[in-house]
Amino acid sequence: MLYDRGHRDNPGDDKDEGLGKVAQMIKPTAGRRPSEDELIARYFAPLAGEGGLGLKDDAALLMPKPGHDLVLTVDAVVAGVHFFADDDPGSIARKALGVNVSDLAAKGASPAGFLLTLTLPEGWTEAWLAAFSEGLGEAARGFACPLLGGDTVRGPATAVSITAVGEVPAGRMVRRTGAQPGDRLCVSGTIGDAALGLALRREPAAGWAAALASDGRAFLIDRYLHPQPRTRLAGVLLEHASAAMDVSDGLAGDLAKMMRASGAAAVVEAAEVPLSPDVRSALAAEPTLMERVLTGGDDYEILASVPPERLDAFLAGARRVGVATTPIGTVTEGQGPPLFRHGPTERRYGRGSYSHF
Amino acid sequence: MLYDRGHRDNPGDDKDEGLGKVAQMIKPTAGRRPSEDELIARYFAPLAGEGGLGLKDDAALLMPKPGHDLVLTVDAVVAGVHFFADDDPGSIARKALGVNVSDLAAKGASPAGFLLTLTLPEGWTEAWLAAFSEGLGEAARGFACPLLGGDTVRGPATAVSITAVGEVPAGRMVRRTGAQPGDRLCVSGTIGDAALGLALRREPAAGWAAALASDGRAFLIDRYLHPQPRTRLAGVLLEHASAAMDVSDGLAGDLAKMMRASGAAAVVEAAEVPLSPDVRSALAAEPTLMERVLTGGDDYEILASVPPERLDAFLAGARRVGVATTPIGTVTEGQGPPLFRHGPTERRYGRGSYSHF
Repeated sequence: MLYDRGHRDNPGDDKDEGLGKVAQMIKPTAGRRPSEDELIARYFAPLAGEGGLGLKDDAALLMPKPGHDLVLTVDAVVAGVHFFADDDPGSIARKALGVNVSDLAAKGASPAGFLLTLTLPEGWTEAWLAAFSEGLGEAARGFACPLLGGDTVRGPATAVSITAVGEVPAGRMVRRTGAQPGDRLCVSGTIGDAALGLALRREPAAGWAAALASDGRAFLIDRYLHPQPRTRLAGVLLEHASAAMDVSDGLAGDLAKMMRASGAAAVVEAAEVPLSPDVRSALAAEPTLMERVLTGGDDYEILASVPPERLDAFLAGARRVGVATTPIGTVTEGQGPPLFRHGPTERRYGRGSYSHF
Repeated sequence: MLYDRGHRDNPGDDKDEGLGKVAQMIKPTAGRRPSEDELIARYFAPLAGEGGLGLKDDAALLMPKPGHDLVLTVDAVVAGVHFFADDDPGSIARKALGVNVSDLAAKGASPAGFLLTLTLPEGWTEAWLAAFSEGLGEAARGFACPLLGGDTVRGPATAVSITAVGEVPAGRMVRRTGAQPGDRLCVSGTIGDAALGLALRREPAAGWAAALASDGRAFLIDRYLHPQPRTRLAGVLLEHASAAMDVSDGLAGDLAKMMRASGAAAVVEAAEVPLSPDVRSALAAEPTLMERVLTGGDDYEILASVPPERLDAFLAGARRVGVATTPIGTVTEGQGPPLFRHGPTERRYGRGSYSHF
């Protein structure tokens, strides 16, 4: 996508190329920064998996495991929209990769690698890039999901788009569409931490915030910044789940989506939804936060539909891999938004949390 | 990546999700535009290949052909950097996909599908989206590369990032690294059309432009806007090439990269570089344009290194699939930028056309 030199600010003038194209990763302003070769060698080549070919070719190579299908997903985050521009660069990187690995896990897939599109604004610094690549590398190692290739472009704001590739045994990808009436609905981890973590970042002086100890506030904010994809649950989902998805857009909205895809409805016992002690403290101080807990996003937990005869084995399997899972409700006949029972009160969360672009 | 509702302009408020996540493709402002379900059904679901699962799941599914490796590549374009914001949306789409399919072809791979990250600015219109998706669909059909999934996000400028996946027989991906001294260097199509097309858009009143007929100017601009990935050449490269890459950043710079990767040098006879009649007319009027022809970007032709005993078979194979290819030089021992012979004059194009980010 490169043109003649000398004109930097017109369309067609950005000299960029893929991470997989070694000499082209970063095009620093002449004289002010290390060469692109140095930067890619220093910051990105160490992250490359075998299929990344040392980031020295036009494309990455992936040799699929025989008898496996590939699962592909893409998610992008943009400064000022999905994260704060002054967020720690390592956290941005870790989250950008984590949300994709979370999608793979929900499909029963093991990570095979990822491709990165990094958009950097005019004033990018090497310090930012160093911290970003360090966080990305840690995440890639932690999630066992190596860098395969990428592209770096100039743009008006920092943005990170990641395409992640995973593998599942052939024909076994866990779909959204398989939930059956009578199935039990289970969710991993705890719900609402990230939604309240985001709320704390926006309104640190909210009344309920005072009810939390400082380590409680830190925990919630960390849950917002650093999702923990439930990769270890993938095999258990493959074995026992009739349907699954990751909860990224709020439990209520995502459950509604899964039921719509499956042609079913659902009833959830709100009191069974697993909550962290810090969310419980916040709710004690401000009970109306419950809607935010159930509809707020960024949980990156896994919602699974499990046939009742499989439930014990599913829960035991999840315990074995060290991921807490909790039954919260049941798939029912019918359609429409899931019913949440709060003691004697019943609520449906309408279109959920996703009504605008 | 979704949050509680009601706050549109803070980080964390963008309610977006993948194309592969059916209800979430587009989040129009309530009341002003069709619902996201309608938009995705209308504009993107028709583009989805089998593995896209109707864009109704969290992820795409790809069943690799047995005995094949996967080739993955990613390229992004940003308004105001890589294209003009008022360019025809269908052209933007077609080029964004075409440049990725071009990378696959150069590796000997057949397209299997692609994932899309579409960033739309605040004021996006349905008319723009309709034209974009129409162009994208035409390109996807034309290149036999179906949509597998995607993500749509809000951002400060329109941007399109595409990850394309292709298939090659196992172990056969054509690398950048395999060129051997003595190999002949061949290039498909004609070189420099797009570079002069871009120049015409920037400086329509340039002296040499007057030497072109209006259909000549239109041809050059079309070559800039609408790359023709040489997909049909993939099998011929697999059979005969020792190394290949697509020429996206200028022939001189890309040849330098391939030689660096192969640990070799090269000599090119500038008079042998294939030029269109319109580029020849422009050069007749303004001979100094030759540097732009050889170093300017966006050719999206294929540069191949071919062992001499394979050359005739390579050229015949290319003819058989209807892609003109031309020998332009030879791989030599040594290192350093390729030598271009212009009659008695010799030139090296230094760092080529990619010296800034």
